[in-house]
Amino acid sequence: MILAQVMGNVVSTTKLSVLRGMKILIVQPLDGDTKAKGQSFLAFDTVQAGAGDVVLVMDEGNSSRMILDEPQAPIRTVVVGIVDDIER
Amino acid sequence: MILAQVMGNVVSTTKLSVLRGMKILIVQPLDGDTKAKGQSFLAFDTVQAGAGDVVLVMDEGNSSRMILDEPQAPIRTVVVGIVDDIER
Amino acid sequence: MILAQVMGNVVSTTKLSVLRGMKILIVQPLDGDTKAKGQSFLAFDTVQAGAGDVVLVMDEGNSSRMILDEPQAPIRTVVVGIVDDIER
Amino acid sequence: MILAQVMGNVVSTTKLSVLRGMKILIVQPLDGDTKAKGQSFLAFDTVQAGAGDVVLVMDEGNSSRMILDEPQAPIRTVVVGIVDDIER
Amino acid sequence: MILAQVMGNVVSTTKLSVLRGMKILIVQPLDGDTKAKGQSFLAFDTVQAGAGDVVLVMDEGNSSRMILDEPQAPIRTVVVGIVDDIER
Repeated sequence: MILAQVMGNVVSTTKLSVLRGMKILIVQPLDGDTKAKGQSFLAFDTVQAGAGDVVLVMDEGNSSRMILDEPQAPIRTVVVGIVDDIER
Repeated sequence: MILAQVMGNVVSTTKLSVLRGMKILIVQPLDGDTKAKGQSFLAFDTVQAGAGDVVLVMDEGNSSRMILDEPQAPIRTVVVGIVDDIER
Repeated sequence: MILAQVMGNVVSTTKLSVLRGMKILIVQPLDGDTKAKGQSFLAFDTVQAGAGDVVLVMDEGNSSRMILDEPQAPIRTVVVGIVDDIER
Repeated sequence: MILAQVMGNVVSTTKLSVLRGMKILIVQPLDGDTKAKGQSFLAFDTVQAGAGDVVLVMDEGNSSRMILDEPQAPIRTVVVGIVDDIER
Repeated sequence: MILAQVMGNVVSTTKLSVLRGMKILIVQPLDGDTKAKGQSFLAFDTVQAGAGDVVLVMDEGNSSRMILDEPQAPIRTVVVGIVDDIER
C-alpha cells in the first residue's frame, strides 16, 4: 500500500460495462512527510474519499479484488482507507 | 489503471499468432494535470482509441485477460476507456 | 525484498475491517550503503519494528499472504525482519 | 508490453538447467520516438532477434510462460515480436 | 531478469523461520554496459555468488518459487546465474 492524496476523478463514458457505477479517483503518491512524490495514477474508491483527502491505496490486483469481493473484476488499485494521522 | 494519451501504433509482422489482428497502441502516461510524465509503453486497444485520445489503461495481466475474455492470452496491458472529462 | 528504514506509522479509522488491528508502517527504501533512495511506502508489521529500525520488506502479495498465513487477506507488503548487520 | 532495442546477449555457464539453451538478450527500453529511456534488462528470445533490432517485449510471468508453452518455467520477460514500423 | 552485481549480504536474526539458512545478498542493478543504474535490492542466493560477481537475478515470485522448488515459500527475488561474458 502507499500513501496518496486524492486530486479529483475521471469521467469516462466508454469504459467497460463491468466498471460502470464505480468512481475512479486520480491520486498523487506522497512520501512519509506527505509531500507529493512520483507519478499520479487512478484508483477505485471504496471509502467515499474526496479531493484533498490523504488515503491508503492498495495496488495489487488480487488484494483489490478481495476487498471488493469481486474475484473476476478487472481491478487492480483501490482506495481502502482515509488517513487520520501519521505518527513518527 | 493510469491516465495516458495515445501516440500511435506499432506494426509488427513477426509477432505471435495469438496476437495477430490486435491493434497495439503506443501510450504516454499523463499526470493528474494531463501532462506527459514517465515512460511510454504498449497497450492493446479495446475501445477504438486513436492518436491524441486520453485513455484509461489497465496494466495488470489477470485484469486484462478478464476484460478480453481470453484467460490464456499473453496480454498484460489494455486500453479500457476513453476519458471525457476530469473533475477536481 | 528490499532494505528499508521505518519512519513512523499511519493511523486510519476508516480502513477495511480485515485490516483492523494491524500496524501500518511508513518505510523508506535504502540502497546498499543504507542511504535513503526512492519513494517511501506502507508495510504491515510482523516483527514489532519501530521508528529508525532497518528492516527487510517483502513486497509481493502471494509471499506476504503466506507469511501472515492469511491466504485471503488483501495484503501486499510486509516487514519480515530486522537487520542486525550488513557484510560486504 | 514495451518497445525495446536489442543491445547484445549474456553468456552464463552456471545458470539453472531449465534455462540452458535459451538465448538471453540485453534489451534497452525505448520511448514512443524510439529513443532510449529507462534501464536495460534481460529477456528470453523467441523470434531470433539480433543486436539493433527494435522489438516487442512481454514483461509478465504468466503471459511469458503461456507464450513459451512452459507453464512451470521460471521465466518472466520474453521478446515476442520484431517491429517493422511505427505509425502515428 | 536483470543484470546485477553482488555488493554484500544482510544479517538478520529476527527474520521468519522459513527464511533461516538462506543467504540474502544485496545486489546493485547494472545497465547493458555493466554500469550501476537504479536502486539496489535484496535477493536470495542459489549459485554461491560472492561480492563483486555479476549475476542474473530473477525478480518474480512464481518463477523464484519454481526455481527453489518451494511453492509455498514467501520468496520473490533470486540470483539464478553468474555471468561469464556479455556479447554485443
